Amino acid sequence: MTRPETIITLTTDFGTRDCYVAAMKGVIVSINPSAHIVDLGHEIEPHNVVAAALFLKGSAPFFRDGTIHVVVVDPGVGTDRRALCIKAGEQYYIAPDNGVLSLVVTPETPFEAVAIENARYIRSTVSATFHGRDVFAPAAAHLSLGVSMNELGTAVEDIVRLELPVPIVLDDGDVEAHVIHIDRFGNLITNVDKTFWETLTRFGDKVNIEIRIGESTVITQMSKTYGDAPQGAPLALWGSSDMLEVSINQENAARELGVNVADKLTIGVR
Amino acid sequence: MTRPETIITLTTDFGTRDCYVAAMKGVIVSINPSAHIVDLGHEIEPHNVVAAALFLKGSAPFFRDGTIHVVVVDPGVGTDRRALCIKAGEQYYIAPDNGVLSLVVTPETPFEAVAIENARYIRSTVSATFHGRDVFAPAAAHLSLGVSMNELGTAVEDIVRLELPVPIVLDDGDVEAHVIHIDRFGNLITNVDKTFWETLTRFGDKVNIEIRIGESTVITQMSKTYGDAPQGAPLALWGSSDMLEVSINQENAARELGVNVADKLTIGVR
Amino acid sequence: MTRPETIITLTTDFGTRDCYVAAMKGVIVSINPSAHIVDLGHEIEPHNVVAAALFLKGSAPFFRDGTIHVVVVDPGVGTDRRALCIKAGEQYYIAPDNGVLSLVVTPETPFEAVAIENARYIRSTVSATFHGRDVFAPAAAHLSLGVSMNELGTAVEDIVRLELPVPIVLDDGDVEAHVIHIDRFGNLITNVDKTFWETLTRFGDKVNIEIRIGESTVITQMSKTYGDAPQGAPLALWGSSDMLEVSINQENAARELGVNVADKLTIGVR
Repeated sequence: MTRPETIITLTTDFGTRDCYVAAMKGVIVSINPSAHIVDLGHEIEPHNVVAAALFLKGSAPFFRDGTIHVVVVDPGVGTDRRALCIKAGEQYYIAPDNGVLSLVVTPETPFEAVAIENARYIRSTVSATFHGRDVFAPAAAHLSLGVSMNELGTAVEDIVRLELPVPIVLDDGDVEAHVIHIDRFGNLITNVDKTFWETLTRFGDKVNIEIRIGESTVITQMSKTYGDAPQGAPLALWGSSDMLEVSINQENAARELGVNVADKLTIGVR
Repeated sequence: MTRPETIITLTTDFGTRDCYVAAMKGVIVSINPSAHIVDLGHEIEPHNVVAAALFLKGSAPFFRDGTIHVVVVDPGVGTDRRALCIKAGEQYYIAPDNGVLSLVVTPETPFEAVAIENARYIRSTVSATFHGRDVFAPAAAHLSLGVSMNELGTAVEDIVRLELPVPIVLDDGDVEAHVIHIDRFGNLITNVDKTFWETLTRFGDKVNIEIRIGESTVITQMSKTYGDAPQGAPLALWGSSDMLEVSINQENAARELGVNVADKLTIGVR
Repeated sequence: MTRPETIITLTTDFGTRDCYVAAMKGVIVSINPSAHIVDLGHEIEPHNVVAAALFLKGSAPFFRDGTIHVVVVDPGVGTDRRALCIKAGEQYYIAPDNGVLSLVVTPETPFEAVAIENARYIRSTVSATFHGRDVFAPAAAHLSLGVSMNELGTAVEDIVRLELPVPIVLDDGDVEAHVIHIDRFGNLITNVDKTFWETLTRFGDKVNIEIRIGESTVITQMSKTYGDAPQGAPLALWGSSDMLEVSINQENAARELGVNVADKLTIGVR
């Protein structure tokens, strides 16, 4: 039953200046000394479930079948929110039931889920404030040793889902969209994905684009990559997850344009 | 003599924008290609030996027998402070002798220790400013290959210990305590542990608590977890290491209350 | 042909709050589940090719033969800059051809190089903005499985090299140097290396040094380590990579002295 090469990934908002991630790793390797732990990222903004959900969407699909993803962005720790273990697309996700898995387990994704409850697979004393160490880490380690998901707890039918803003087609045909994430480089990632865009524009002739964002920024064409625009010039492109992105070549667009997460942009098709 | 599954953990104040941690990893895997390196954390505040000691206290105990913990928070590098290898509780600690191990090797902990001196197990040229790479990393790697601790150097009886503030019971029965750490979430971790508290209050009837911290914050009851208080309200709870913690649900208590490490709080039992 | 113990190191400017590093790891372990990934550092300043080159210089040499270093600091992603795989000193480097390898593959270093082009060893869809995931990671993973470097693409003779400032001997015999890096501790790393210095001063009698940097800082002797100077006093020493460093014992020299990367210092020999 052992799965010696099972990878356990860790994604948290714990940072690494405190002992929290370290304690989780200790718990995992104490249960399964052969566990192959892969840090995905621990610098998710504290309590930002949406950022964590986007993070997972952009990374989990690249892992192979059998991978166990542990995700601890958990502002409701110790309340009655459930601790989930979900199997979807042949990968496992262990996380609080707060919507953080919404973008990897979409309404269209077939999945099985349990609420982690079996005292045998969690720590004997469970702190009210640190389920990462006391619930999620041990459950993941036991799963990696071959324990069946169904032994971890009872089946769950529905999971909490995030309500993310969707782009809206206005009366004049323009699209109202939102910035949903700003990455380390200051790139503005929007909620407009390429599929939506192609549906929207497929009937048209050659279209010109007009993106308005912030005080007065207007971008009038799509670029292929950052270097297509002169240094310092705003540009728009399809990012690596096929979302519309507004950037500035070698500069920080969020800072330069004064734009924050949740800010609006409008996109015209001319 | 080989211990193929031996874990070497790394805890430093080096950050990861400079090459220091990377160089240590190179040294370790060059000596023992099978070494299983686990990053505990590299974002300890520069030169903050107390923060590193608390970090270790909250993480090392969760690792299994035989683990080798390398800890490099070393403001006295290159001076005559000793380089230690300590065995305590069946785990090994390799660190400068500056108190950083005080909270995992307490006065009550049986231990064996050596000062790392054997030129055979350190790098042939030792920089005066980077013992992490030239002394601690190679010693850990050789230890992981089965070299006996006693071959690393001569026995040491005493180690440097930190003088941490202890909570004081005042004449009126109130307790004067201090903030000893602020975590990434802004939670204020104090020097009041649950054992001390239970000793203090075990004779009383039902007690009400009154915590005063910062300008005017008063907390009048203990919570079980963050979510027990409304968002934005200060609360107190026993944290995951059984220390008294002052927090604000989903906000940063240190920032909101204007509190820093070493600040005082008073706790009344009514 | 498998090399089961091959280490793949990762160095990027991606940070770890976004999904980029995580996606690269997924791609690597999906191709080679036994890949031994070692994070070198992901906090290189965004787009700072010089910082990344210095980072590599201070870390890659400590790794063993056969190590594969993946370096993604790539402001020109998606333009016509080449993607390189270089073998030098029995180690492999996979990186954009933008100078980031200049300091580990110097004009004196024998090397072989190819431009990564073979569609078989990169992802089937290559994003214009994320070659870390789509080109560099898969190439590294295939190389670690035993694919020959020459199968990755066609041979390349020349690589882009950085033009770094060199120290200049002035008419009066003083040396004009520059700060090329500031580390996490605020230490100022200069472009004066020990070999240059020894050449310069080997004919002299006993020499006294006089370093002027910032508004009015004058340092008049070399120290061996940080602790040789009183806390708060500026000092100069040969750092762990044998570069002249200006520091303040237990304080942040860059901040205290108001010095930035590229700032000038003059060094007199008296």
